[in-house]
Amino acid sequence: MSEPAVVLVSGGLDSATVLAIANHEGYACHALSFDYGQRHGVELDAARRVADSLGAVAHRVVNVDLAAFGGSALTDFTHAVPESPTQGIPITYVPARNTVFLALALAFAETLAARHLFIGVNAVDYSGYPDCRPAFIRAFEALARLGTKMGVQGGRIEVHTPLIDLTKAEIIRRGIELGVDFAATVSCYQPDTMGRACGRCDSCRIRRDGFAAADVLDPTRYRAT
Amino acid sequence: MSEPAVVLVSGGLDSATVLAIANHEGYACHALSFDYGQRHGVELDAARRVADSLGAVAHRVVNVDLAAFGGSALTDFTHAVPESPTQGIPITYVPARNTVFLALALAFAETLAARHLFIGVNAVDYSGYPDCRPAFIRAFEALARLGTKMGVQGGRIEVHTPLIDLTKAEIIRRGIELGVDFAATVSCYQPDTMGRACGRCDSCRIRRDGFAAADVLDPTRYRAT
Repeated sequence: MSEPAVVLVSGGLDSATVLAIANHEGYACHALSFDYGQRHGVELDAARRVADSLGAVAHRVVNVDLAAFGGSALTDFTHAVPESPTQGIPITYVPARNTVFLALALAFAETLAARHLFIGVNAVDYSGYPDCRPAFIRAFEALARLGTKMGVQGGRIEVHTPLIDLTKAEIIRRGIELGVDFAATVSCYQPDTMGRACGRCDSCRIRRDGFAAADVLDPTRYRAT
Repeated sequence: MSEPAVVLVSGGLDSATVLAIANHEGYACHALSFDYGQRHGVELDAARRVADSLGAVAHRVVNVDLAAFGGSALTDFTHAVPESPTQGIPITYVPARNTVFLALALAFAETLAARHLFIGVNAVDYSGYPDCRPAFIRAFEALARLGTKMGVQGGRIEVHTPLIDLTKAEIIRRGIELGVDFAATVSCYQPDTMGRACGRCDSCRIRRDGFAAADVLDPTRYRAT
């Protein structure tokens, strides 16, 4: 029987590739997405398509009200999404987002007796987010082993980050090898209600450059500007 | 100006005492409670009374759907709350609960530029929960410093656990010194809709024994059995 894993699936390009990798490695993948008050609800539709098409055994969407805290252009609509590159940590950073998401993934994993978590963080194209770094991931594993029943009972909880050292182009090539349909994914920070990308935000820019560098036709649906 | 702190307030006896301590130490206390699908919604009413009466500058209730995962008698109503002492980690353990709660407190703290979190964990009467131990708290601080913008920018994030080495009787005496009205708090795992305690669950037993050991009149409202 396959070992169970919890895979964080956002509806974007990276997490779709992570799900394909986890599935390819033989895990029984429980996809987990969050409704956290994000600007772009269309990403949850994309997450559902990704989980369905890439063979997740189940897909759970959990509500967590990060928008209640404000402080990010992705949840607080009074901030505009920047359309030119910024230095340092951008306003699209959601406070402690990966800490919250991994904590919830851990809670879900514990109810499944799953020791494996997968997250699509990436230290190369990480856009300046502190919670995408390897040291952060190792610190979370240490926490998880101390703070859970399965950790205390000797289960060696592992956070898998198969994309952490890949460039966007490498992620795209790996996804295509594993049959990911990137047209089903949404990366844009401000897509329209049909899921079409703006082509101008940081996330669109990184994605478009990735397809160009991978020498792969960009299947992204851009809206007319 | 007072330094801001985020104080986790559940509506129970311990977190009420923590709020009184943080307030006494001069922090501007932002109380934070969670609606996580718990059996006992009356605890949120108690949290509001506690935050109001103990001088919190604000009180936020955030929705996080831990019940979606199941696996605990406190959120999954198909499990009965045990009424006799159990060995090891009890069924009332909510998977990774303090990891999730501290992660959300950290997200809130970051939007407030608050470096201080307060949580009422207790290693003496901790009922076998792994996420109440000092090693877990230190691991969370390490994670918080790595995974946040304020941590990366040099803010030394601290998780204060003023109750960690106190017995229940000591917590009660400290709370009374600081003016906590324990009649406003609810500890029972299965109170009735008026907030009256069962007197039989683990949490009721620990609380009642605490008042007895502190030689303080127990103000808990018990329901007729």
